[in-house]
Amino acid sequence: MASSWKDWKERLLGKPLATSAIRHERLTNMQGLAIFGADALSSTAYATEEILLVLATAGASMSFISVPIALTIVGLILLVALSYHQVIHAYPQGGGVYNVAKKNLGEYPALIGAASLLVDYVLTTAVSAAAGVAAITSAFPVLFPHRIAIGIAVILLLTWANLRGVRESGRIFSIPTYIFMLSFGGMILYGLWRHLTGTFPVAVQPLPGPVPEIGTLGILLIFHAFAAGCTAMTGIEAISNGVQAFKSPEAENAAKTLQRMALILGGIFLGITALAFWGKIVPVANETVLSQIAHLLFNGSPFYYLVQAITAIILLLAANTPFADFPRVASQLAKDEYFPRQFLNLGSRLVFANGIFFLALFSSFILYIFGGDVHNIIPLYAVGVFLGFSISQFGMIIHWFNEERVPIKNVAINIIGFTATAVVFLIVFFSKFIYGAWLLVPGIFFVVVGMRHIKNHYGRVHNVLKLGNEPLPEVVPEKTAVLLVSRFNRGTLYALKLAKSFQPAHIRAVHVAINKDEGEEVQRLWERYVPDVPLDVLHSEYRDLIGPILAYLKETDRKWTNDAMIVFIPQTASTRWWHFFLHNQTNRRIQLAIEQDPDINPDIYEVTIKSPKQGA
Amino acid sequence: MASSWKDWKERLLGKPLATSAIRHERLTNMQGLAIFGADALSSTAYATEEILLVLATAGASMSFISVPIALTIVGLILLVALSYHQVIHAYPQGGGVYNVAKKNLGEYPALIGAASLLVDYVLTTAVSAAAGVAAITSAFPVLFPHRIAIGIAVILLLTWANLRGVRESGRIFSIPTYIFMLSFGGMILYGLWRHLTGTFPVAVQPLPGPVPEIGTLGILLIFHAFAAGCTAMTGIEAISNGVQAFKSPEAENAAKTLQRMALILGGIFLGITALAFWGKIVPVANETVLSQIAHLLFNGSPFYYLVQAITAIILLLAANTPFADFPRVASQLAKDEYFPRQFLNLGSRLVFANGIFFLALFSSFILYIFGGDVHNIIPLYAVGVFLGFSISQFGMIIHWFNEERVPIKNVAINIIGFTATAVVFLIVFFSKFIYGAWLLVPGIFFVVVGMRHIKNHYGRVHNVLKLGNEPLPEVVPEKTAVLLVSRFNRGTLYALKLAKSFQPAHIRAVHVAINKDEGEEVQRLWERYVPDVPLDVLHSEYRDLIGPILAYLKETDRKWTNDAMIVFIPQTASTRWWHFFLHNQTNRRIQLAIEQDPDINPDIYEVTIKSPKQGA
Repeated sequence: MASSWKDWKERLLGKPLATSAIRHERLTNMQGLAIFGADALSSTAYATEEILLVLATAGASMSFISVPIALTIVGLILLVALSYHQVIHAYPQGGGVYNVAKKNLGEYPALIGAASLLVDYVLTTAVSAAAGVAAITSAFPVLFPHRIAIGIAVILLLTWANLRGVRESGRIFSIPTYIFMLSFGGMILYGLWRHLTGTFPVAVQPLPGPVPEIGTLGILLIFHAFAAGCTAMTGIEAISNGVQAFKSPEAENAAKTLQRMALILGGIFLGITALAFWGKIVPVANETVLSQIAHLLFNGSPFYYLVQAITAIILLLAANTPFADFPRVASQLAKDEYFPRQFLNLGSRLVFANGIFFLALFSSFILYIFGGDVHNIIPLYAVGVFLGFSISQFGMIIHWFNEERVPIKNVAINIIGFTATAVVFLIVFFSKFIYGAWLLVPGIFFVVVGMRHIKNHYGRVHNVLKLGNEPLPEVVPEKTAVLLVSRFNRGTLYALKLAKSFQPAHIRAVHVAINKDEGEEVQRLWERYVPDVPLDVLHSEYRDLIGPILAYLKETDRKWTNDAMIVFIPQTASTRWWHFFLHNQTNRRIQLAIEQDPDINPDIYEVTIKSPKQGA
Repeated sequence: MASSWKDWKERLLGKPLATSAIRHERLTNMQGLAIFGADALSSTAYATEEILLVLATAGASMSFISVPIALTIVGLILLVALSYHQVIHAYPQGGGVYNVAKKNLGEYPALIGAASLLVDYVLTTAVSAAAGVAAITSAFPVLFPHRIAIGIAVILLLTWANLRGVRESGRIFSIPTYIFMLSFGGMILYGLWRHLTGTFPVAVQPLPGPVPEIGTLGILLIFHAFAAGCTAMTGIEAISNGVQAFKSPEAENAAKTLQRMALILGGIFLGITALAFWGKIVPVANETVLSQIAHLLFNGSPFYYLVQAITAIILLLAANTPFADFPRVASQLAKDEYFPRQFLNLGSRLVFANGIFFLALFSSFILYIFGGDVHNIIPLYAVGVFLGFSISQFGMIIHWFNEERVPIKNVAINIIGFTATAVVFLIVFFSKFIYGAWLLVPGIFFVVVGMRHIKNHYGRVHNVLKLGNEPLPEVVPEKTAVLLVSRFNRGTLYALKLAKSFQPAHIRAVHVAINKDEGEEVQRLWERYVPDVPLDVLHSEYRDLIGPILAYLKETDRKWTNDAMIVFIPQTASTRWWHFFLHNQTNRRIQLAIEQDPDINPDIYEVTIKSPKQGA
């Protein structure tokens, strides 16, 4: 059984990789751009539309502002990218905002940054999977009733690919990302050529309106449109969190990839906004802006379908970026003991398997809970992104103040970057507060408090276990042995003999009787075979075993408070794996209950009764 | 946490019931008829249609045969009911076919009977839930995409009601069953009055055809139609399996209820067949025969909707009957050690909770796997029912031969009953063999083999544990202590000191190093603090802890083969329930792997390290 499980695991995930192979499991820059860039690039599929939707409320006359807004956002993208470029060089271990804030701003800003990142990643995977599935189901409406199942299937597929290892998932997911870049690049260049030759087709003849006045309301509208367009920036921080996934020199390669990614992202976003402007496209309910552009330019040709298909695929792939980042951030937190230790372990394929499972579980859960209606979550995660940006930029400013002889350019980048992202954060946060962004406040609060609790707990444990100056553990104190008796048989006698061989100061046996006859039978046999040890028979009118046992152990512990208590649990030896299901379930539940009870912490001795030959 | 979990459980299931309350938790005959009769009665909703569907293949001219066929089946129903009446008196402990066959035919027929019952119950719940949901979704097509979710929700609801206890579920489910009986009885009487007054409406004007000749093909057709109609008999055995759910005198009450149930079942089935015949109803694709009848008789009146609604409800309630029976049969099997011991336990509300969970789990699984298409499973379960009937009747024949002075009437009932049900079994089995009934052969085979394996295993365990004539367990042999070292700290030293205090003949410590540095660090500290005990450091290139530990234990066990091996696992004391998730997971997995490994059966000692004050 053990070996066949291993076979299956290997077939599914590939052969285990030796720890020494970790250097070979890194991503090339090409792969890194695809894996970490998918999230950011996918936002170009909807960011322009978000801007136009806001502007449309003021009538078609305002739509010319979309291009200046996009230009501003591209400037911001480059600024933030430059800032993260500096983050990568300063903190090449990855972890992005968390490590920046930890070094420069202290514990709580670091935890807030980390919490916003983690929450973000879960939301990104859920939202992207749902958005990709929505693109599929709008092409094949017959699949619509199965959208949640398909979304979860997508997440499972990503989980599987990522458990196979970073390099393998890089191999699997790189190609569509590059097809996306090429086809969108091609579309933009083709549109530019049509524009320059004056043959750009126009969607609808716009009414000749008056030149708009930009009044107070207009300014607010522009701010609003700008905030909406800032969704284009989500995902830009991804590379800074996963620096160690790149080949050596890690920082060098990651920074180079970030630069390229920012340029491609800015180019595509600006290009699409320009195409929409030239085509005088107005957002409508039943067709995306992107689809309208592709219709205008390639109506009827297969290139239209390529653009639509690759858009759906990139939206699905955006769900993959967190799989590269979340487990790394979680492992950084686990290393600092803010997260359970299990997140620190590398799995058989040299990936942080527990982090991958956790992300898959939570994002599937959110997908399931919100059903098709994930658009409600989008405000939430744009806010989290900008909170992370602002904290990391502010951290970098402090970073420079602590260094000597810093080029003024570096400081300037972060000061301007911080101001811009903090302003955007405030705009986005307050404009989306009532639409759900308020949820981030309790959400991040609880995650931070939880992490602090974990840290405190590990701290106390270290205090108990540290070798340091404390005296070495004292002589083992006197022992109280408690034998749990479920039936009276040879096993009971064997366990009793074993317990006695420990020479405990006190020895007790306890039996919980579910019905009267059984209790009397055990009592009768006990008195006949074991006259020298007292047996306590507890009658459980409600057939509950655990409650009476815990109560009994607590009472015994109080009685001899300076003793070390040992609970002896007899059990039968398994000789086939499935025997496990025929026994032990009750023993296991009792054992778990004892371990989880904060009031008692006895040692637990599982006595395994061998067959007569073995025991002889 | 423990107490709040208990609160929730009580709120959900009601207060725990004392074992002594079991007599008050029995069903009245009224409730018993509703609980155990729902399955049988629900089959009247489709049995007539099954007959007409077969006859329709020969044209409308054959439909007059439906009434004689129904009469024959009603005769068979009464015969089988009489037979089970005798089963109940002979085996008042319940368990039906299983106990009859065990006493009279030996082990394997009993296991085959029990296996066919268990498989049947799972299928009944799955099929009935699906059929009930189908009735709902044909009224509200908007719910169709959610049919699986609704079906599973229905099963969960039944699980909940049954976990609350037999009496409570009797209270919840009785009323609709009686509404069903009353409304169907009313409909039949009204139809009879219309027929007698010559005002019975006719569906379509049938073509005046020639009087049909019943040739060879005709006979086959009649057999086929008869076999199809025998679905009316499913569920008739339910009362015999759950005799102990009735109030005292159990056998008396159960037998009386069975009689009533058979009469009501036969009456409704015959009545509906007659109504269909009088109305000259032909089965059509988009409306059930029952709906056609109700349309004819009550077109437009609210009574039509009542009939349709109560039909949907009784189909759903048929899914409840197995919840009363399956756990009882499973507990009978567990008592004889053919089933895991867990099925023997009464839960907090005096029901066999594990059996209820198991049934819910498996029937949900089947519902999920087959999706909406459960009609494919129907052949399967009619076959299983008649296999059970035949075995139990044959068992009763043998039963009478072993008794003295048996009334000839009793023997005759079972001989005729056996012949009839065996013939029906063969007809149904072979006519449905290629449609899936063949699946029963491997299905029952595996269940029977599984039960034999379980029995063998418990037998071996009893042999090991029995007190009997065997010498009492020998002196505890020499001990080999193996200490698992994960990190080097005070806990390690404490556990080592404890292990030494057992005066083992051999003592070993082992550390699995995930990376080189860590291994060297542990080695260095070990040599400094513990010069007298050897530490084995195992390097795990693939970061697997369990494999190397199991291999090490096996090797150590082989080295000192006559020793009793004790594995010491240090762990940290929990002082809050959630601390559990921050530790122990690896320890737990190691412990489970050791317990499940058939090659080694060491004792396991969980050393709990207390804080310095406690340990002092």
